[in-house]
Amino acid sequence: MKVAFDVMGSDYGSLPAIAAALQVVNEFKNVNIVLVGDEAQIKGNLQTLLKNKPMPSSLTIKGTTQVITMNDGPLAGIRMTNSSMSQAIQLVKKNEVDGILTSGSTAAYLGTCHFLLGEIKGIKRPAFMPIMPTLIKDQQVVLLDVGANIENTVDDLISFALMAHIYCQTIQSIFRPKIGLLNIGTEENKGPEVTKATYAKLKALTQSNGKLSFLNFHGNIEPRNVLSGEVDIIICDGYSGNIVLKSVEGMASLLFTLIKNGYKKNIFTKFVGLLSLGIFKNIKTTFDYKNTGGAQLIGINGIAFKAHGSSDKKSYYSTLKLLIRAIEQDVTNKITKQIEALS
Amino acid sequence: MKVAFDVMGSDYGSLPAIAAALQVVNEFKNVNIVLVGDEAQIKGNLQTLLKNKPMPSSLTIKGTTQVITMNDGPLAGIRMTNSSMSQAIQLVKKNEVDGILTSGSTAAYLGTCHFLLGEIKGIKRPAFMPIMPTLIKDQQVVLLDVGANIENTVDDLISFALMAHIYCQTIQSIFRPKIGLLNIGTEENKGPEVTKATYAKLKALTQSNGKLSFLNFHGNIEPRNVLSGEVDIIICDGYSGNIVLKSVEGMASLLFTLIKNGYKKNIFTKFVGLLSLGIFKNIKTTFDYKNTGGAQLIGINGIAFKAHGSSDKKSYYSTLKLLIRAIEQDVTNKITKQIEALS
Repeated sequence: MKVAFDVMGSDYGSLPAIAAALQVVNEFKNVNIVLVGDEAQIKGNLQTLLKNKPMPSSLTIKGTTQVITMNDGPLAGIRMTNSSMSQAIQLVKKNEVDGILTSGSTAAYLGTCHFLLGEIKGIKRPAFMPIMPTLIKDQQVVLLDVGANIENTVDDLISFALMAHIYCQTIQSIFRPKIGLLNIGTEENKGPEVTKATYAKLKALTQSNGKLSFLNFHGNIEPRNVLSGEVDIIICDGYSGNIVLKSVEGMASLLFTLIKNGYKKNIFTKFVGLLSLGIFKNIKTTFDYKNTGGAQLIGINGIAFKAHGSSDKKSYYSTLKLLIRAIEQDVTNKITKQIEALS
Repeated sequence: MKVAFDVMGSDYGSLPAIAAALQVVNEFKNVNIVLVGDEAQIKGNLQTLLKNKPMPSSLTIKGTTQVITMNDGPLAGIRMTNSSMSQAIQLVKKNEVDGILTSGSTAAYLGTCHFLLGEIKGIKRPAFMPIMPTLIKDQQVVLLDVGANIENTVDDLISFALMAHIYCQTIQSIFRPKIGLLNIGTEENKGPEVTKATYAKLKALTQSNGKLSFLNFHGNIEPRNVLSGEVDIIICDGYSGNIVLKSVEGMASLLFTLIKNGYKKNIFTKFVGLLSLGIFKNIKTTFDYKNTGGAQLIGINGIAFKAHGSSDKKSYYSTLKLLIRAIEQDVTNKITKQIEALS
């Protein structure tokens, strides 16, 4: 297995990305990683990390000369063909790697993936789909779209439900994953027009004898219950999904900060903090978004993941593990074949 | 000072509402509360709460015969003129009370307030405006709209900024409150069309020599930074605002639940939990949305507040305190006069 890792997209330079790649190849003996980016910088960082140890043979470098910045738009990757992002995607296109990870400009990533790889047949709009923890132990929820789109049509949302259904069935072995629709109320007649129309269509599909009647629609899910574990899949337009994702991330990080500060107050609270470590470790491991990692760009012809621009080594490591799992499970081919069989 | 309290709108019956009213009149000697709703039910619950003590003279009952349910639409209050919600709003209209609190159907509340009280001159759309805690001690942020509207125009959003500016200046004594615009990125060119146009207009207004140049626009605020304390005001359309509000509430309650469960595990963790109580009490008091209370329906001709349908005694108590403060500060008249002076 081989993955292309664009290490130039981070807000903090390429060091955390390269450190995560090193950890992954040391842990997963069957994984090869191509570090794509400025060759001198990558070599320098590798030297810092490896000290005098030799470079693992499962790491290779693909030197590139251009860098796409966070402010670059959808055409940047097409214009800058020798950028790390564009070159990494080209490796997928040429079948030289099985998947790709970047943390660079979302707009450029979407534009370049669309242009070079295209969408799965039958899918108009790809979606970013993170896998999120829930209140119920070992149960997760996938939320899509969280930012590949701003607005979505009813058909987009139905196709998100279908892709996530196949994903949960094949990757998570859930026979009939429960699908929820993000909305500001549980009632059928709540929310924007697109959401109301999607509710009606999903309900009709589920109750029909048609091709999509296997979809298991459970109604509206309010933002406060996104992580309650009620459903396996939550579909929403990219703007609302991005708001939910960033709101819960922000609140989690705010509360962890306040708790940490609380324990730091004096010797006594520091001691109690030490005793409480075990309790927090579990919760923090589950709900710290550095551990849950990035999101798959589902619907694209290829296995493409995106990490936060602000990722640290731990985030990159988690996202690389998600990418490896998606490649092992051959997720994109499975979605492609099932959608083909339905049409 | 006299307030009308529609006690029939709760998901859990009128007992928690009446208990909160009792606590408030006992604490605030200048406050009179009219409990509006089913007379027999209110009397029964008062008896339960008061046992053999006499009913405080600052509490009165306004008996009504109809109840608006959570599923009732915008015309319910106009149709059911003897409903507790409609009667409570009529008391404001007749100047018999200084303000109103309900936790009933949002749609019916909006419709009835619009019909009976109307909007402040110059304001097309009222907004729900909760006052939220931030990471910075004793600093709050107002967020509007969080659900009075689904979609909003650029002009709506500018009027939200203006009302919140006057609110923060007069009530919170902030000379030039910082205004943020909720968006999925900090860049000017991010997000939906309405948001981009609002950014451009607010920027132009702030930089102009025009009437609204006192507005202190600070750019986009991402959902993860809503509670960071960067700005005093965050404006957004009602749909996005509702998603943010419910997402952060949901995440806070989820984390508090997990922490509580963690401490319950065994004797040792229970003991550590006891020692940690002091640390959590502060955080929970600040970020438990039962304490921050409901939201003012700002832009309406009158002082109208709304609490969650799922409010308990603590939530109602907090919201009543917010309502009392708004009446003391004469907030609606101040907004009305300043908007008049600008036009």
